[in-house]
Amino acid sequence: MVLLRHAVGQSLRAARTSQSRTLREVAREARVSLGYLSEVERGQKEASSELLNAICTALGLALSDVMVDVTNELKSRETVTLTVVDAA
Amino acid sequence: MVLLRHAVGQSLRAARTSQSRTLREVAREARVSLGYLSEVERGQKEASSELLNAICTALGLALSDVMVDVTNELKSRETVTLTVVDAA
Repeated sequence: MVLLRHAVGQSLRAARTSQSRTLREVAREARVSLGYLSEVERGQKEASSELLNAICTALGLALSDVMVDVTNELKSRETVTLTVVDAA
Repeated sequence: MVLLRHAVGQSLRAARTSQSRTLREVAREARVSLGYLSEVERGQKEASSELLNAICTALGLALSDVMVDVTNELKSRETVTLTVVDAA
């Protein structure tokens, strides 16, 4: 089962690493704890909508940018699932 | 500020009403309480990723379908915000 928090975390981590920034830097700018951001990025914690916006702002992204990325990730994973089902 | 849970709730409610189904019917099928679904639809509660998937399944939607809708809603609201800022 594809979970939204996994796709969100993956997108946020990819954005941060593509900017060569550390968890500490982004967490400070977003005013969230380093542990919180780390858990969100690993898909272990659901980010609240407010803190998700703060993290997006710290990364210089619109929330919709992240959601475009998330949607593409979900679609690709759903397609894989459908393919596997189809082959069974 | 545009919040993810508002856009998600709006999308889920629109899908349910377009199917002429009641909160009670969808909540039962998704195995969530009626109050929970109602709060999620009104953007008052963050749906956990697992329960969001259950609600999508009850509505016959892929999670990515909802996220496409959410992304479009976010983009339209972000554009309005940018326009207002630009006009100031």
